[in-house]
Amino acid sequence: MNWEEKVRKVVPYVPGEQPTGSGIVKLNTNENPYPPAPGVADALRSMANDYDEMRRYPDPDAASLTQALADHYGVKEDQVFVGVGSDDVLAMSFLTFFDSDKPLLFPDITYSFYEVWAKLFRIPHKKMPLRCDFTIDPEAYLEPNGGVIIANPNAPTSIYLDLDSIEKIVAGNPDSVVIIDEAYIDFGGKSALPLINKYENLLVVQTFSKSRSLAGARIGMAFGSAKIISYLKDVKFSFNSYTMSQDAIRIGAAVASLSDESYFSDVTNRIVKTREEAVERFKALGFSVLPSATNFLFVSHSDRNASDIYNALKEKNIYVRYFNSPRIDNHLRITIGTPEEMEKLYNALQEVLK
Amino acid sequence: MNWEEKVRKVVPYVPGEQPTGSGIVKLNTNENPYPPAPGVADALRSMANDYDEMRRYPDPDAASLTQALADHYGVKEDQVFVGVGSDDVLAMSFLTFFDSDKPLLFPDITYSFYEVWAKLFRIPHKKMPLRCDFTIDPEAYLEPNGGVIIANPNAPTSIYLDLDSIEKIVAGNPDSVVIIDEAYIDFGGKSALPLINKYENLLVVQTFSKSRSLAGARIGMAFGSAKIISYLKDVKFSFNSYTMSQDAIRIGAAVASLSDESYFSDVTNRIVKTREEAVERFKALGFSVLPSATNFLFVSHSDRNASDIYNALKEKNIYVRYFNSPRIDNHLRITIGTPEEMEKLYNALQEVLK
Repeated sequence: MNWEEKVRKVVPYVPGEQPTGSGIVKLNTNENPYPPAPGVADALRSMANDYDEMRRYPDPDAASLTQALADHYGVKEDQVFVGVGSDDVLAMSFLTFFDSDKPLLFPDITYSFYEVWAKLFRIPHKKMPLRCDFTIDPEAYLEPNGGVIIANPNAPTSIYLDLDSIEKIVAGNPDSVVIIDEAYIDFGGKSALPLINKYENLLVVQTFSKSRSLAGARIGMAFGSAKIISYLKDVKFSFNSYTMSQDAIRIGAAVASLSDESYFSDVTNRIVKTREEAVERFKALGFSVLPSATNFLFVSHSDRNASDIYNALKEKNIYVRYFNSPRIDNHLRITIGTPEEMEKLYNALQEVLK
Repeated sequence: MNWEEKVRKVVPYVPGEQPTGSGIVKLNTNENPYPPAPGVADALRSMANDYDEMRRYPDPDAASLTQALADHYGVKEDQVFVGVGSDDVLAMSFLTFFDSDKPLLFPDITYSFYEVWAKLFRIPHKKMPLRCDFTIDPEAYLEPNGGVIIANPNAPTSIYLDLDSIEKIVAGNPDSVVIIDEAYIDFGGKSALPLINKYENLLVVQTFSKSRSLAGARIGMAFGSAKIISYLKDVKFSFNSYTMSQDAIRIGAAVASLSDESYFSDVTNRIVKTREEAVERFKALGFSVLPSATNFLFVSHSDRNASDIYNALKEKNIYVRYFNSPRIDNHLRITIGTPEEMEKLYNALQEVLK
């Protein structure tokens, strides 16, 4: 007997590479190529001026942030939950809502952290195969289960599932919590958020990391019925009273306020425009491209292995994401960068594919 | 059947009140009465200038922070773990190390979050009574167990356990992880940190929230053998790749650097001096005072109920902490404030006790 026998052993999620140095084109973690709204700099400067306040614990309810989000999204404050990025929100949600002997259902190809959380918390789970075209079959999620989680748009496929299908899954599972993970919703899809007033069992999770260019600040949020949010808060307050730092609360409240809204839509529109151009450019290079409602494309080439292309691009200091997993091991997930970054990518691909 | 039946139901930890407004003397959450080191303002200003970098994910290993801590404490980088305050570090540690059918042992009077975490993660646990004088009996922790956690100095008692006794507990439990929670160690005790090179099963947890005046930044850390830290990292990376925001990493690295060291010892010394004066003043007011190695005192009055004093002080806008729990429901935990704040407290107590 040894102390190591009492250790929970897990195989962690591996985030995308975070290379540093100049001249790197980083299109591998779906970061936003544009800076966050100017309100972020103001919030950090005001925090610097009030830095003596950092000796105090933050507001454990992060009320200024949840209030700003409630106002912005037109919901009540008790329908909002915030965390350290949407990963924190999702981890807490897995711990809270899927306490069942029945399996949690999620697609076989989706955000690979779902399986990591399920294993960490020993939640029985079952992967539901996507159709051959990588779309989700909503009917599959109506069998008995301990919960459902769907990324919409899905990652890494980039494909959006229409809201009627989402509602069918939520309505068809009154005895389970259904989580819709909308990390990429601002790039084209319709959010399930309005449904939280209709379905008590629905939790909609979003993030400041993608469309709001704030991956570095670690701010994520969930919306749901007051009851579902209350259960989530109980678990959060059983884990860490103060997950959100004073600076994160200030940054988040600033950015969620309507004053930065036009900046936000401008950035999102630019990315969507670059994405639509990218679809054509990739097709011209011989790639097949899945229909994207996100800030990335999921592509494969008829003649060349994805892993070869990934490695060749990396040698040219261009980072994209390759998953060595069943069904998608010949695909690449490529974040939409600035038009300049994308030109570098096309040029590099032209050489690589020669 | 209903979705609520699949919810993990818990009774969360209740943090101390965070009243806002002017004229309040807040001595209820063991915050530091002095501002953090000036490096914090510099770090926030530099982050404001680089705010466009916030679009990037932080370094998932927070290497600049762990390196600064390793340098400062004279350990290797792979012996350091960081989290969102020591509560996050402890929550992750409970999840990682106490995966056993045998009970986790901790004192009956201690940081009440221990029981909350044990219940959240369904860890069997057993409370070991403190002696009548509220000291810890090290021998009690040598019975078969699934793990041990000791706050040293203990809270809310403020009493320090000598390092030989700590070592006896660690050495006597080679088959369990022993966590020493040193949130208050900088106010007088000797840290168990040097023992991490001798005992693979020891984890020492500390925080920036108390002695470093940074409760608002949410930075905590653990030290241990490379092996124990590696297990903890696996669970952390199965929960959230990026717990530490870019700004928290910058703030922590700045403050952990030796340049701010003299500021840090100055602040700590001032608090210890005020504490020693406070002991005499409380005794003169008719209180019995436990010997404190922390930034707070744990006191009781022979003639007056603690809850009455708590309420009377609150009416005068002075907040202290009262726990309505067995054995300590006639005590008050009072944070050491500035000399000016303490004068206000003594004056108020003189009126209340009249």
